[in-house]
Amino acid sequence: MENERLHSEMNVTKDGVLAYRIYFEQSFEQLPKRFLELEADRRKICIVSDRCVASLYLQEVETKLKSVCKNVVSYTFPAGEEHKNLKTVKDLYRFLIEEKFDRKDLLVALGGGVTGDLTGFAAATYLRGIDFVQVPTTLLAQVDSSIGGKTGVDFDCYKNMVGAFHQPKMVYINIQTLTTLSEEQFFCGMGEVLKHGLIKDKAYYEWTIQHRDEICKREENFLTEMVRKSCDIKRMVVEKDPLEKGERALLNFGHTLGHSIEKLMNFQWLHGQCVALGYGIASWISMKKGFLNQKELQKILETNKEFHLPVSFSELKPEDILAATKVDKKMEHGTLKFILLNGIGNALIDRTVTDEDILDAVRHFETTIRNGENR
Amino acid sequence: MENERLHSEMNVTKDGVLAYRIYFEQSFEQLPKRFLELEADRRKICIVSDRCVASLYLQEVETKLKSVCKNVVSYTFPAGEEHKNLKTVKDLYRFLIEEKFDRKDLLVALGGGVTGDLTGFAAATYLRGIDFVQVPTTLLAQVDSSIGGKTGVDFDCYKNMVGAFHQPKMVYINIQTLTTLSEEQFFCGMGEVLKHGLIKDKAYYEWTIQHRDEICKREENFLTEMVRKSCDIKRMVVEKDPLEKGERALLNFGHTLGHSIEKLMNFQWLHGQCVALGYGIASWISMKKGFLNQKELQKILETNKEFHLPVSFSELKPEDILAATKVDKKMEHGTLKFILLNGIGNALIDRTVTDEDILDAVRHFETTIRNGENR
Repeated sequence: MENERLHSEMNVTKDGVLAYRIYFEQSFEQLPKRFLELEADRRKICIVSDRCVASLYLQEVETKLKSVCKNVVSYTFPAGEEHKNLKTVKDLYRFLIEEKFDRKDLLVALGGGVTGDLTGFAAATYLRGIDFVQVPTTLLAQVDSSIGGKTGVDFDCYKNMVGAFHQPKMVYINIQTLTTLSEEQFFCGMGEVLKHGLIKDKAYYEWTIQHRDEICKREENFLTEMVRKSCDIKRMVVEKDPLEKGERALLNFGHTLGHSIEKLMNFQWLHGQCVALGYGIASWISMKKGFLNQKELQKILETNKEFHLPVSFSELKPEDILAATKVDKKMEHGTLKFILLNGIGNALIDRTVTDEDILDAVRHFETTIRNGENR
Repeated sequence: MENERLHSEMNVTKDGVLAYRIYFEQSFEQLPKRFLELEADRRKICIVSDRCVASLYLQEVETKLKSVCKNVVSYTFPAGEEHKNLKTVKDLYRFLIEEKFDRKDLLVALGGGVTGDLTGFAAATYLRGIDFVQVPTTLLAQVDSSIGGKTGVDFDCYKNMVGAFHQPKMVYINIQTLTTLSEEQFFCGMGEVLKHGLIKDKAYYEWTIQHRDEICKREENFLTEMVRKSCDIKRMVVEKDPLEKGERALLNFGHTLGHSIEKLMNFQWLHGQCVALGYGIASWISMKKGFLNQKELQKILETNKEFHLPVSFSELKPEDILAATKVDKKMEHGTLKFILLNGIGNALIDRTVTDEDILDAVRHFETTIRNGENR
């Protein structure tokens, strides 16, 4: 019993002190109990959600929270990355002002990465910072964006250009919500899951390949194990380096090119898809630099295909992709911090990747589709 | 010599560790040296300033910084509290993106409280946070807003409704800049100076009254001593409670009603003027509650008048002032944290001030002008 309890929660520390807990559950049943631990009975709560997620879960979550808190309101906005911007944040500020939310009140991000990032940023900046809770409902948000305190919005189509580090007070994961995801949304999350194995844990990477069928069928036990493992990898990296002064940058594997592609595609591809293509290209560069052999590269690209993740593109110019990397957050003193693989399960930060290296690699992935391979 | 050096700088710590230094200088001569300590030669610098301050000091500061940094650019915006908003911040983000500013680059706030708060907020949120330096040129900014890491902008006319805690990397004070302030701007700063004595240091309060003439003539030695002393009081309070969980709230003496008045006056009165009127009213409430005697209250109001600070108002409705306090940041769980004086030099947090107490007090200060007294 004790073991079961331990298995269903994970502590995240900051500077060695407990910062918040992640709960892994199969339903929303435990929400009232968990919110009482945050003294929700003495606070106002605003549940923030996009309209798509709201139609699925808002009523249930709101009812659960109302059983322990008499002041629960909700704010919804249109779904989609194109609404992760300051306009939506300003609209949310206005709602909070009207509802007289003060410094002791609480926001709840119910939804995917867009909702979590946006709600977290509003919480980080409303009255110079109030508390918020993550209730991630997509695979991507559960394994990646809800943990680690990165919040932010896009600005003039630049990804997460405006943001803040602001840790949640709790992350409540209901694994069951993964069953309502579209195929595309689900596999998008797999881009980040596979990334975790690639950068930190070869055995985990092999496990995901080995259990591809169970994962694709969304069998609860496998999903729970997978989400827990990915959260654990992210937790370890973030605890060591919360503000991305060093090792946390490894989590950006695939993100430099991924963000450029995401921006240039006007967000028509999902984040995890772009990341997967981005780390495909980064793996190719790793191979060119002798860090990865041909067989490993092939395995990475094959696995992406098996999980319905893109391994090529056709509508973009390689030069535009290169140019877009120059205004990404990974630039430091004018040099690009590029994440490469030194074998599967072991990422490194490289500062020697040249424009020519990038163009070369990107062109290779453009060619692929000309040869008739699918994305 | 060593003593002189120590006298010209002050360390500000956070969690017991040096966070940044405040330098007290009589010119901008030492800027290059101080910026080299921040490795400015390896970074891009953007000086942010309003057009009024820019016309006075931008060229000199830019030239000084260019002697140690090859990438110095500047961004200016129209002067005035009405430009301390997200529109200006967005414009600044765009400028930084165009200039390809990355995480290692540096913003410099050259100007008063508006410039410092706005630049600090942009620095707190651009790419999830970059470094910034405060070069305050008004008395208010030198003794108050440049220290302690409170950043933010107004939102829909609500003061500092959107912001973040983000410490500067350095504060460089050139006392000489106080000589170019208008009388109104200078006395506005005195509102915060007098507040420091009132909440924490009776002897300092007496000193400012005693040396009123020298201060009003802006004699350099007196101004230097005064700015240092006020910085020291603010430093001590902020070090103990950086995120305003407790004692830091004492610095808000006069601010709850001050912010309401500032908002209702559409920012036609300066911040320090509104704060002075606000703490005048708060002192009256303190007297009513038996914390302050009639003589002390009279002294506070007389001193304000001597420093050309308002002690009454005429154009506002007391009910509107009360209503505006309800959406201020000092609300917690629906209760107002009100700062009162328990004798001059000793502030306290009070949670028992009722709406009726406030209305009563505010009405008293409305009456005053009807009796023909000046503001």
